[in-house]
Amino acid sequence: MALIKVAINGYGTIGKRVADAVDAQDDMEVVGVSKTGPSFGCELAARKGFPLYCTTDESARIASFSSGGYECRGGLSDLLAIADIVVDCAPGKMGADNLSKYTAAGVKHVFQGGEKHSLTGLSYSSNANHAENLDADGTRVVSCNTTGLSRTLVPLYEHCGSLKVECTMIRRAADPGDSNKGPINAIKPVLKVPSHHGFDLMTVKPEIEINSLAVAVPTTLMHVHTIIADLPEGHGLTTESVIEMWRGTPRVVVMHGERHRLTTTAEVMEMARDIGRKWGDLHEIFVWEDGVKLVDDRLYYFQAIHQESDVIPENIDCIRALMGTEPDWRVSVAKTDRAISDYYDL
Amino acid sequence: MALIKVAINGYGTIGKRVADAVDAQDDMEVVGVSKTGPSFGCELAARKGFPLYCTTDESARIASFSSGGYECRGGLSDLLAIADIVVDCAPGKMGADNLSKYTAAGVKHVFQGGEKHSLTGLSYSSNANHAENLDADGTRVVSCNTTGLSRTLVPLYEHCGSLKVECTMIRRAADPGDSNKGPINAIKPVLKVPSHHGFDLMTVKPEIEINSLAVAVPTTLMHVHTIIADLPEGHGLTTESVIEMWRGTPRVVVMHGERHRLTTTAEVMEMARDIGRKWGDLHEIFVWEDGVKLVDDRLYYFQAIHQESDVIPENIDCIRALMGTEPDWRVSVAKTDRAISDYYDL
Amino acid sequence: MALIKVAINGYGTIGKRVADAVDAQDDMEVVGVSKTGPSFGCELAARKGFPLYCTTDESARIASFSSGGYECRGGLSDLLAIADIVVDCAPGKMGADNLSKYTAAGVKHVFQGGEKHSLTGLSYSSNANHAENLDADGTRVVSCNTTGLSRTLVPLYEHCGSLKVECTMIRRAADPGDSNKGPINAIKPVLKVPSHHGFDLMTVKPEIEINSLAVAVPTTLMHVHTIIADLPEGHGLTTESVIEMWRGTPRVVVMHGERHRLTTTAEVMEMARDIGRKWGDLHEIFVWEDGVKLVDDRLYYFQAIHQESDVIPENIDCIRALMGTEPDWRVSVAKTDRAISDYYDL
Amino acid sequence: MALIKVAINGYGTIGKRVADAVDAQDDMEVVGVSKTGPSFGCELAARKGFPLYCTTDESARIASFSSGGYECRGGLSDLLAIADIVVDCAPGKMGADNLSKYTAAGVKHVFQGGEKHSLTGLSYSSNANHAENLDADGTRVVSCNTTGLSRTLVPLYEHCGSLKVECTMIRRAADPGDSNKGPINAIKPVLKVPSHHGFDLMTVKPEIEINSLAVAVPTTLMHVHTIIADLPEGHGLTTESVIEMWRGTPRVVVMHGERHRLTTTAEVMEMARDIGRKWGDLHEIFVWEDGVKLVDDRLYYFQAIHQESDVIPENIDCIRALMGTEPDWRVSVAKTDRAISDYYDL
Repeated sequence: MALIKVAINGYGTIGKRVADAVDAQDDMEVVGVSKTGPSFGCELAARKGFPLYCTTDESARIASFSSGGYECRGGLSDLLAIADIVVDCAPGKMGADNLSKYTAAGVKHVFQGGEKHSLTGLSYSSNANHAENLDADGTRVVSCNTTGLSRTLVPLYEHCGSLKVECTMIRRAADPGDSNKGPINAIKPVLKVPSHHGFDLMTVKPEIEINSLAVAVPTTLMHVHTIIADLPEGHGLTTESVIEMWRGTPRVVVMHGERHRLTTTAEVMEMARDIGRKWGDLHEIFVWEDGVKLVDDRLYYFQAIHQESDVIPENIDCIRALMGTEPDWRVSVAKTDRAISDYYDL
Repeated sequence: MALIKVAINGYGTIGKRVADAVDAQDDMEVVGVSKTGPSFGCELAARKGFPLYCTTDESARIASFSSGGYECRGGLSDLLAIADIVVDCAPGKMGADNLSKYTAAGVKHVFQGGEKHSLTGLSYSSNANHAENLDADGTRVVSCNTTGLSRTLVPLYEHCGSLKVECTMIRRAADPGDSNKGPINAIKPVLKVPSHHGFDLMTVKPEIEINSLAVAVPTTLMHVHTIIADLPEGHGLTTESVIEMWRGTPRVVVMHGERHRLTTTAEVMEMARDIGRKWGDLHEIFVWEDGVKLVDDRLYYFQAIHQESDVIPENIDCIRALMGTEPDWRVSVAKTDRAISDYYDL
Repeated sequence: MALIKVAINGYGTIGKRVADAVDAQDDMEVVGVSKTGPSFGCELAARKGFPLYCTTDESARIASFSSGGYECRGGLSDLLAIADIVVDCAPGKMGADNLSKYTAAGVKHVFQGGEKHSLTGLSYSSNANHAENLDADGTRVVSCNTTGLSRTLVPLYEHCGSLKVECTMIRRAADPGDSNKGPINAIKPVLKVPSHHGFDLMTVKPEIEINSLAVAVPTTLMHVHTIIADLPEGHGLTTESVIEMWRGTPRVVVMHGERHRLTTTAEVMEMARDIGRKWGDLHEIFVWEDGVKLVDDRLYYFQAIHQESDVIPENIDCIRALMGTEPDWRVSVAKTDRAISDYYDL
Repeated sequence: MALIKVAINGYGTIGKRVADAVDAQDDMEVVGVSKTGPSFGCELAARKGFPLYCTTDESARIASFSSGGYECRGGLSDLLAIADIVVDCAPGKMGADNLSKYTAAGVKHVFQGGEKHSLTGLSYSSNANHAENLDADGTRVVSCNTTGLSRTLVPLYEHCGSLKVECTMIRRAADPGDSNKGPINAIKPVLKVPSHHGFDLMTVKPEIEINSLAVAVPTTLMHVHTIIADLPEGHGLTTESVIEMWRGTPRVVVMHGERHRLTTTAEVMEMARDIGRKWGDLHEIFVWEDGVKLVDDRLYYFQAIHQESDVIPENIDCIRALMGTEPDWRVSVAKTDRAISDYYDL
């Protein structure tokens, strides 16, 4: 079977990870990645063997790459012309602009969670609505936070039949490689109440009732969610059985904070580096076993989200959904994870 | 009328503030403060004119003060002998030890929230249970976090008649003057679930049903609470009327994050410095007006707590309660605040 | 004698402090402060009784203040018309623009260290070149870092007759009330080598030979300088005599890190709050006694600089220099400090 | 030729990296690693196939590993009995205690920079004194900071014949996976002046005259050195030729801050993750090309040191020195680096 030809438009924090993940699969290939101009990212692409394109079609821009010693194969149009599907990893809110280009080129397209649901009218999360996305022209992989909620709440919902959730998101303020953003010594509440994060889960699983509040704090490592989920009567669950359920859930890792000495996000990230994950990433959602507690029908738990990486495998599954090559989300997830968990599984 | 003679046992972060607050009142006086040995705090006490005592009765310790050039008037026993009441501001968990000394000396005693309720079997919060503490021998002023919850939830409870609350506490990890504690770049969940903070409110207001989750984050400025309160049917409140209620509540300040450009705890603290409060303290609980929202019967809001200072005026009211000199909490609160809000009211 | 009429153009971090310092003197008064529009700063000015003006003359802007409930007395021209001298505390690089307005209005003017020496061709530091500034039309108070270098190095130079200095500046990245700037978890070298900071000292004391390197670090509290000064042969100094010299130097405070438990900038700032300084400021340069060491002819020491406040008293002395009312810098410094060290001297 | 049998005593931050580095070489093998008790590190060792031993010989301790499901092969004595050489990666100051055990067992030994030079009377740095360590019984690999100084200063010294250096060390306060240490928001000077770091270089290169000052800052990523080196007359170097010299120096990487957008330690660390280094390590010393400047005979530059990893390859070379298997440091360095720079060279 022919490999799916994937273009990566924007080779930055997310794009470079998606490119490696695509490259690791046996049913797809990277036909090109794009950059705005010469930089260390071009060198990285060159060393990895990904053909380099410019994010625009301006000839002056395209020519500028050679000044840095890089070979640029052409503009975005040239890249789209050889692709079956494009993963949009452009920063900011360039969605509407890019969407028209993708549509004009007749190329399927996957946006990231920085764009709104309304851009494509369709969103994606592997365990929530893979089937709904089969053969669609374009969609949006939901944000790192929404993906994290989907991972632990969807199986809970499927067991219980209904769910009412409140979540407080304690967000890291900047990526590890970002040195411009603050606050250095403050807590910043997101004063839009409830915050948009909870609602966003309903774009892929409208049956889950959820609200959220958010604050930003001065750390570069992982978001943390404190979650309160009200289960319906007769749910039949216990603290232990919830933990067991998540142990059997793909892309959720349950470890014990005290016993494993993983009591903060710093130690969780060190563990990800220990097991040899690329970039020290942890695409699984991390749940502290000793932080889960069911009190009557109210479930309390903490989870940590690795912002740069939890959506990476979702993009791979999403490519298969849009291309219609794998209708079963569980099969796709297993295939994706086997290919990218290069060192070993948790 | 004779002034109430107050001893401060432990002249550190809390003790130095309580001493100044007592000193500012017209119905009480500081008869002495205690330190473990010579240090900058002794100089501070000397300059403020507070007689200096040693936290123990060991003669070698008492003598050690003169090596630093400070006059020590004697040991703890000497201090207790001239006091009507002692405010225990000792660090750590020295409560049981100190309690027996206070009892033996026949001196009334006020502990801080670092001690457990069980130590005295009685706790105190000005707006929750002043009456219950009248003429008691000893009590405990609840912690900064519990005091913060009491301030906004008790008036809400009194209006509604019942209340069910969930709170996520985003705790600063260290005091501004503390340079030993971390984490520098991590989020640390408190893995005891639910955390003890919420339950503690029930020691002063058992009618409010409350649970909490907590995380520590790398900042030295203020705790932030994200609060979800379920109001009973027929509460008759709106977002606006809740805000109005808090505007009329002592020691709660409601300001608009966006309009006043007070969008983080850093800016809130700068405002407290601007208005000339001693140590830049803010003993009021800070509620962001634009972060309050009532959705059906569920109320969402954020509040910020200045850890070193919100309990200071509570200690003053508590002294009056134990001494039985002011039965009406509202009268005491007004009197206390007039004396310490030296620059002007918010 | 008539009071010197001082206008403050820009009532922000520096402006609000200069206004209070002017207000505390008996030979000058604040005739007005300016803001760009309604905000919490306007409320602060109103409560302090400082007449409020707009930073421009646009009538729409001036009118906008009333929407916030503030009385604006007019535009910058109106403010300059009633002033003898203006202290420019405008943010950014608005110097050239403002200079022409001040000159046109015939008002003397003091700029801050954010502007370049070339703007006025004259700079000011109280202990370095007060005499040179007497009766000048305009000048620039050097930056917080240069002021800090001037405080400790000028007396050393005056004793020795020559001095060759290397300084590494470890700069805090943001003001305490600033929540936008990073880096959160990184060290950022200033890659212009040598940095401009050292050279800047030569604008007020050209006889001192000095270079510097700088890095920015994630803290909001004080800059720290590590300084290496080569003394000429026959200097006759010892570690102890250097310490004694600084003890007798105005606006330098020498304390012992270990003995006073002031081992970090956090603890130094807490000490400033303890002694009741407004905003918790420390306008003195802080030298760690146990960090001073003379090895042969090379002197090593650390000093900490409180960025928001060390230049405040310099602005007061500078006003007197330009107005020609006090030719002796030592007399002005003593007068200024007596008025603003409201709680007590260090 | 038989493989060198290497024991790793202490499988923590340094030990786990040394083990992987030994494992990657073709002339040595890991015969065992030790832990104090069951933890995530045991699991890591098990998955990597490193035999697990206990750091002591207590039978209760040894038995405790099975409770965590790990197979412990025995105590430290058992491990030493099968080793040619032991790399001591124990935390704290356990050197004297361990030294006697190693000597008793007749095993060669390599300590880390946390121990003092006086422990073995010999220290090691690959480019400074490999020859001096040939066939020795035991030595100490100098600390991360001293290793960093050695890398850039030794080639400079060898060119110039003499060198006088001053260094300010801006030290990160904690390792990335460490969540206990502060300060969160402060700068902490090391009040011992000059600090021990500079002197330590003289244990491996006594010809270089050097002093240093140090401060700790709230970051977990890399130390930064600001260095001032006085070159002797007639050195014949220029800014450009110094840069070229370092480009040709093993384990030094020179990149341009502005052109490569690597302006802070956060971005340098992200680059190390990009190129696929294990744990995101950078064992090279990072020099900012645009931060190097020779002014007359005084050279200024910045370098960044990755604390956990720069000494790792030094340990490998050191093993070869003590075993006497490779007398030429350049040959050993090339061999070591080829084996561990798994993704590609910088």
